Amino acid sequence: MRELDVVRAIGGLLPPAPGEVLVPVGDDCAAVRLGGTVWVAAADMLVEGHHFLGGLAAPEDVGYKAVAVNVSDVAAMGGVPRFVLCSGGAPEAEAVLRCFRGVAEACAAFGAYPLGGDTTRAGALTVDVAILGEVPGGRPVLRSGAVPGDLLAVTGELGAAAAGLLALRRGEGGFGRLVGRHLRPEPRVREGLEAALLGAHAMIDLSDGLATDAGHLCERSGVGCRIDLRRLPVSGEVRRLAEAAGEDAEVLAATGGEDYELLVAAPEGTLRELARRLSVPLTVVGEVVEGGGVSFHRGGEPVEGLAGWDHFRA
Amino acid sequence: MRELDVVRAIGGLLPPAPGEVLVPVGDDCAAVRLGGTVWVAAADMLVEGHHFLGGLAAPEDVGYKAVAVNVSDVAAMGGVPRFVLCSGGAPEAEAVLRCFRGVAEACAAFGAYPLGGDTTRAGALTVDVAILGEVPGGRPVLRSGAVPGDLLAVTGELGAAAAGLLALRRGEGGFGRLVGRHLRPEPRVREGLEAALLGAHAMIDLSDGLATDAGHLCERSGVGCRIDLRRLPVSGEVRRLAEAAGEDAEVLAATGGEDYELLVAAPEGTLRELARRLSVPLTVVGEVVEGGGVSFHRGGEPVEGLAGWDHFRA
Repeated sequence: MRELDVVRAIGGLLPPAPGEVLVPVGDDCAAVRLGGTVWVAAADMLVEGHHFLGGLAAPEDVGYKAVAVNVSDVAAMGGVPRFVLCSGGAPEAEAVLRCFRGVAEACAAFGAYPLGGDTTRAGALTVDVAILGEVPGGRPVLRSGAVPGDLLAVTGELGAAAAGLLALRRGEGGFGRLVGRHLRPEPRVREGLEAALLGAHAMIDLSDGLATDAGHLCERSGVGCRIDLRRLPVSGEVRRLAEAAGEDAEVLAATGGEDYELLVAAPEGTLRELARRLSVPLTVVGEVVEGGGVSFHRGGEPVEGLAGWDHFRA
Repeated sequence: MRELDVVRAIGGLLPPAPGEVLVPVGDDCAAVRLGGTVWVAAADMLVEGHHFLGGLAAPEDVGYKAVAVNVSDVAAMGGVPRFVLCSGGAPEAEAVLRCFRGVAEACAAFGAYPLGGDTTRAGALTVDVAILGEVPGGRPVLRSGAVPGDLLAVTGELGAAAAGLLALRRGEGGFGRLVGRHLRPEPRVREGLEAALLGAHAMIDLSDGLATDAGHLCERSGVGCRIDLRRLPVSGEVRRLAEAAGEDAEVLAATGGEDYELLVAAPEGTLRELARRLSVPLTVVGEVVEGGGVSFHRGGEPVEGLAGWDHFRA
């Protein structure tokens, strides 16, 4: 059973949603209207040995990242983070405490307030963060709004987190910035908020890799997309590291995952205005088309067989 | 390092609370005012091998219990459950799905709506539930309001969950009701709500055992208490099972944990009215006194050395 099947099966167990629920499970966040405000909510769990290797990431980094990836989900709805609940388990209490230091650091960095949580003993360092964000514009941006003719753009750069992990694994020095992108992602809160205020049609954060996440956006929107690998924003550092590891830099950027950049679908004019408002680069990488599925090409030549991350894939 | 130390250390990491926060971490739930409504929030994580033994509890039971224990935290504030986020991990996707079936069942039973969560691979079945509840009366009941002269009362019965676990471990048949109390606790939502509406001074749910949880309530209230073991509501079944296992039934009831009953501190008249309104028994077990600490006695004879559950105790 693959992760998406689990999510689908769980979706099938849901009771009818109460009136406050604007967006049920299935997007980056759910959305609910409480009082006059639209709130978005999500949770993400990180487990040692599966999401990170204990020797490569300090407990503080794990706690920081657990908050950052949730903040990224909020950003992908056009929300700003407000409150988190955090549960942590580890073989030793000291590791839980160190992990929570990272949680507190990330909360301070992103302006979220920790409402509480739980601590427990567990065989492996495990942290689950649940987040509540506010949508200042009142209109969350969903995965499902892309229409043929929209362009697809990504914030920042791709492949940096995957390259950072490569550097850690290979023990390659001199790639501190990329390692930082792997250990402590920078969720794009301001960028998501601006995209929402400008009326972007659809948005998703890139946690599982562009190939997989563009697929989610297309599936929910009932459209397809074409992405040009040569347009992906890949830094020279990522190229050098990929080359040293014998990997194709653009394929790494399209499939590596964990960049926590935003993928935005919107008309060309909207993206131009968005780019003008942002301090990080916004790069058009493809276009939304009729049909379904994600097709990759390099300047017109089809590239097959790209796929992202599935936690339960055998 | 003990669990309480971890919680204290984490409390020391907190930034100043935003204006909406009425009650920060440290009670059964935090409380925030959003719009015109007071919401309470909490999270609890269950881990196989620590909170339950894989052979004794089905994944469905684990998911159900993860929701129930969070609902109990909401109940202890005088709230009603509204929304949950649930993250689950296991070696196999099938176990996560079965666990989420239990989550969905509990959500239906307690009127909570699942807003989403996360699924992942993990070495041991792990489930973390974060909950949002609404406080209809607008005034959450804290642990900190008990004053000398209050009486202490518990809902339902004590020791049933611990006895149920004993029965499971010893393979004793014929104790299905007690086993059910261990596997699928019945959080006291209606009871907590009525206590809040009647202006109970302090309340806590009995997750770690009366000895430990009464200690929390006393510490936060700056008071002590005296509890008479002979007054604890212990059923004949629990007595029979404790006897067969060579355990003192009242000590089991005072220290066993996981009953998820409510401990309420209030003036005698309030408790009398509360008892009148409830369908489950409400039993006065002791009184709040000046000073600090929890002292147990049997009809006047002091009983020493009772303590509850600490996840990190060596």
